[in-house]
Amino acid sequence: MVATFRWLKGHGTENDFLLLPDHDGSAHGELRPELVRQLCHRRRGIGADGVLRVVRCSASDDPAAAAAADAGAEWFMDYHNADGSRSQMCGNGIRVFARYLESAGLVDPAEPAVIGTRDGAKVVLWADNGRLSVDMGVGAVGGEVKIGVGGRSWPAVHVDTGNPHAVVFVEALADAGPLLASPEYDPADFPDGVNIEFAVLTGEAAVAMRVFERGVGETCSCGTGACAVALAVAGGRPGEVTVTTPGGALAVDVGSDGRMELTGPAVLVAEGTYPFG
Amino acid sequence: MVATFRWLKGHGTENDFLLLPDHDGSAHGELRPELVRQLCHRRRGIGADGVLRVVRCSASDDPAAAAAADAGAEWFMDYHNADGSRSQMCGNGIRVFARYLESAGLVDPAEPAVIGTRDGAKVVLWADNGRLSVDMGVGAVGGEVKIGVGGRSWPAVHVDTGNPHAVVFVEALADAGPLLASPEYDPADFPDGVNIEFAVLTGEAAVAMRVFERGVGETCSCGTGACAVALAVAGGRPGEVTVTTPGGALAVDVGSDGRMELTGPAVLVAEGTYPFG
Repeated sequence: MVATFRWLKGHGTENDFLLLPDHDGSAHGELRPELVRQLCHRRRGIGADGVLRVVRCSASDDPAAAAAADAGAEWFMDYHNADGSRSQMCGNGIRVFARYLESAGLVDPAEPAVIGTRDGAKVVLWADNGRLSVDMGVGAVGGEVKIGVGGRSWPAVHVDTGNPHAVVFVEALADAGPLLASPEYDPADFPDGVNIEFAVLTGEAAVAMRVFERGVGETCSCGTGACAVALAVAGGRPGEVTVTTPGGALAVDVGSDGRMELTGPAVLVAEGTYPFG
Repeated sequence: MVATFRWLKGHGTENDFLLLPDHDGSAHGELRPELVRQLCHRRRGIGADGVLRVVRCSASDDPAAAAAADAGAEWFMDYHNADGSRSQMCGNGIRVFARYLESAGLVDPAEPAVIGTRDGAKVVLWADNGRLSVDMGVGAVGGEVKIGVGGRSWPAVHVDTGNPHAVVFVEALADAGPLLASPEYDPADFPDGVNIEFAVLTGEAAVAMRVFERGVGETCSCGTGACAVALAVAGGRPGEVTVTTPGGALAVDVGSDGRMELTGPAVLVAEGTYPFG
């Protein structure tokens, strides 16, 4: 028997999340993989790509939360994927997380917010037009690799944004086909698997993309994927790249050292209680 | 600007719905197609196959509600598909609707409930094991037709359950393939399109099915589809047929006159308010 808890649903470029406010950490033991899967099931549950438990760093027993507290973070994003596994960090999820903190009056949007994740403390800024920005760290563009999908293959750019990406530039996004098949690649290039972005240049610093996420399949948006595409487009020159995903537009500010600042929307949609009754 | 309203989410064999309690009919003007699409969007909204507005027959201006009231119905199921269009009736949705009425103390589950729909007044009964039964009317088995999907074709049984079905008996459900393509059929057989069920006999009166819904694609469950398969399996003999859909098991009690009583689960999952804030 689980306790009744409050949740909120939100999304960033259609990457959607259930937020579970658990400021004092008391729901930690309840949030087992089975419950996460049930909550995220699109038909039997509420439905989302993942669950973001909102807990004070001081109330979490995760070593990453203690480290983040030392780096100035008050809040810890305890991120669970829809399949019940845990994740380090998500560039779309952390904006939705920050939006919750703002809506609940837990942070001052006039100031940067330091948020703890399993990938370290991240700095979120409130940008213009209701968008938020997050420092995604430093990425690096590698050499050319080869990627196959659905019986076709393409040359691709190897990009490391903390996780492994292959960026394929195509003439039209439809060229990638229905993306049904498992991607083929040289395991020597990507020993831990690979996320694949198909990208079409739409301007000097503007690009449209589709993304095939490792272990998930094609998705509406991917924050690190947008960063990977922006790095490949920037080609070593600093500046802002607009990346249009199927779920909406993101902006990536690429620094001269490869530092990536991801800016995009974050919207809270609904709130409620679970389970019913 | 829409008002903030309360909603509940529930499902019957993974056919999921948002219930909007609107007992006095005051939200009627708000529930425009755009809002229905927003609510049902799986990522930008809460997510569901449809919206069931719960309104007293006496507070609805739908002529079907007035007719249902004459037939003894107190409550009217104002059914909206996820795409914003309206629908007549849904065998899974009406059980979820009745479950809401029960949970809110608006009906006595010891008695049959008469519920108004655009397809007339329907009688719902509370069955064993948390299931509910609904009288789905009289269906009829027709002749043999031909159905093509994904470059293959099969002989099929034409079944009319109030809407048009073609039931294809196969050796294994995987035989139908990924069901990506638009179905092919003779428009003389199905002038209004066709719902297609692929079915495998798993016992004397037990069958597993996949369903391809007209205008939707493959779905987890379809109440009238389960009835169509049961009629085809029964072959004119009365009795109960168990129909296992991808979303769960349904039972169809077939009468000697072709009357179909559909029995299955209905679960309320969560509740909340919309929009946020």
